Amino acid sequence: MSDFSTIAVSTRVRLARNIEGYPFPSHLKDDRQAKDIIRLVTSGLARYTDFKIHYMDLISEEEALSLKENHLISPNLMRSNRCSAALINNEGSISVMINEEDHLREQCIVKGLDLRLAYDTMSEIDAHISKSMKFAYDEQFGYLTACPTNLGTGLRASVMLFLPALTINGMMPRVIKSVSRMGLTVRGIYGEGSRAEGYVYQISNEVTLGVTEEQILSEVQEIVEKVCKLELSEREELKNGVDALDIRDECMRAYGILTNCAKLSTEELVRYAACVKLGACLGYIHIKDVTEIDELTRNMRPSNINAASGKDLSPVERDVYRAQYTAKCLKKLAERK
Amino acid sequence: MSDFSTIAVSTRVRLARNIEGYPFPSHLKDDRQAKDIIRLVTSGLARYTDFKIHYMDLISEEEALSLKENHLISPNLMRSNRCSAALINNEGSISVMINEEDHLREQCIVKGLDLRLAYDTMSEIDAHISKSMKFAYDEQFGYLTACPTNLGTGLRASVMLFLPALTINGMMPRVIKSVSRMGLTVRGIYGEGSRAEGYVYQISNEVTLGVTEEQILSEVQEIVEKVCKLELSEREELKNGVDALDIRDECMRAYGILTNCAKLSTEELVRYAACVKLGACLGYIHIKDVTEIDELTRNMRPSNINAASGKDLSPVERDVYRAQYTAKCLKKLAERK
Repeated sequence: MSDFSTIAVSTRVRLARNIEGYPFPSHLKDDRQAKDIIRLVTSGLARYTDFKIHYMDLISEEEALSLKENHLISPNLMRSNRCSAALINNEGSISVMINEEDHLREQCIVKGLDLRLAYDTMSEIDAHISKSMKFAYDEQFGYLTACPTNLGTGLRASVMLFLPALTINGMMPRVIKSVSRMGLTVRGIYGEGSRAEGYVYQISNEVTLGVTEEQILSEVQEIVEKVCKLELSEREELKNGVDALDIRDECMRAYGILTNCAKLSTEELVRYAACVKLGACLGYIHIKDVTEIDELTRNMRPSNINAASGKDLSPVERDVYRAQYTAKCLKKLAERK
Repeated sequence: MSDFSTIAVSTRVRLARNIEGYPFPSHLKDDRQAKDIIRLVTSGLARYTDFKIHYMDLISEEEALSLKENHLISPNLMRSNRCSAALINNEGSISVMINEEDHLREQCIVKGLDLRLAYDTMSEIDAHISKSMKFAYDEQFGYLTACPTNLGTGLRASVMLFLPALTINGMMPRVIKSVSRMGLTVRGIYGEGSRAEGYVYQISNEVTLGVTEEQILSEVQEIVEKVCKLELSEREELKNGVDALDIRDECMRAYGILTNCAKLSTEELVRYAACVKLGACLGYIHIKDVTEIDELTRNMRPSNINAASGKDLSPVERDVYRAQYTAKCLKKLAERK
């Protein structure tokens, strides 16, 4: 297997589950039922002591935003005004949303391309939860879900890919078309309907019914690998093509701006960090582990900055903090060789 | 006297002279007369061995462009297809143009604000030239010139000023108005009709008739000092105003771009170097002697790059060379504290 560490940002596995005897969340009769479900799931996960519960009607908007920015709760859950919650582990890699579209939305995110690890981790927890409740399951269909698109396995396996070369070379429309012909979907990083930010796309399975979990995982793996290989060969094209100097210049200027600016918005950081990452991938900027750039971008999201600084900074103060931290961090990354 | 070294880029003194017995250049009968004049002036300057003659009909376009870019010949002289020439000293500070608008256009450029030095230098040479020919001179009017705007002293004293704060704070229209009410003119750096590039303006006397040379010099000195003081106080405003962070950010990003880009056009260098210079003036970037930034911009003009590299580079090669040299030079300047 080739090294896709400069392409695959993260892997996410999500399982949709519902509890027998309760209507789907959108049809719950009253808050009592919703609260029952939260209680059930919480006690089902009691063995896992590193999980903390976040009640959506109790947490601050700031906290909710932070969880959303870190992909630990969905925009839907954040917006919901019903009794809903999320159980999240300390590491921030596993989240069980309660009363989102389904009673349970269990997800695990791992770095890089590792469907096996993400699935096995989630699957083990899922099996444990299932011991203390009966999931709605049909012999013919499999797991029953609120939306038929999740019926069957309830499994969504998705991989975030950094695809600057395919984007710049104008090949993404073709890639998206052929990936969807193979039954997978390409989306922006905040899920359905969102735009690709910083050359990052999410590839996930579309079909959940009539296939086994293993089939889904191996299909996603196979297609992601194909796209990664295409991206790698396009990067070579980029390095040797007529626009090579322009691209190098853009990457280097982005590095210059990020290491010198006095203020920096989130959008600018995402845009310029993507250029710096591309520059590192093409060998123009000496950063050994480009995933640290993703880490930087993550750390510099508004809510994460507030958490790190320990203060509720104003937008301008945050932009100044982001500029200083980014410059320091990037310079350090570029020093190590 | 305050320190205007971060404002006054250079001082230029120019004397317009014509030789008795010859029509003005635009009315010369034939090339023979024009050549006579070139010979006369050349022999008049023979004592000054560090002068070299450049015949406009013999030098390459490249050389002519270089002289123009360095303000040693006028755009007019460059374009002229008549027998014209320029005597230029090795240092590149003194130039005597022959058969431009007048038979002689003698000019001396010095760094910073030093009207005395520029005038005395030029005046001494002018006195020497006048020994070997008779200048067209009228008891009532003074020196006779092709254009009445130069009549009398034939003296144009001009100072190039770096006025970023007055420009950014939107005060230049007012400054230009009041300077012109005092009988002086504000122009872009390539003379009449040219735009201000990189916040640099040229202030010069308008009136040449009915005043003495000393009056002109002291008037220009006085008004330039006033504008400089205004600029200095506006810089303080800039540092403490509501836009201080935006300006600091712009200066820092310009520095980041110039020290990291892979290619750089002349226009970009002029624009970003002006921001870096402003950043240095405001104390955001630690460059002790900001005039070295002017030096850098000068050295990186297309013709000067070709001269320095010893090759006739293509525009793209020149942009790459400019980017590399600029980055190296600026980093060195910012290191010394």
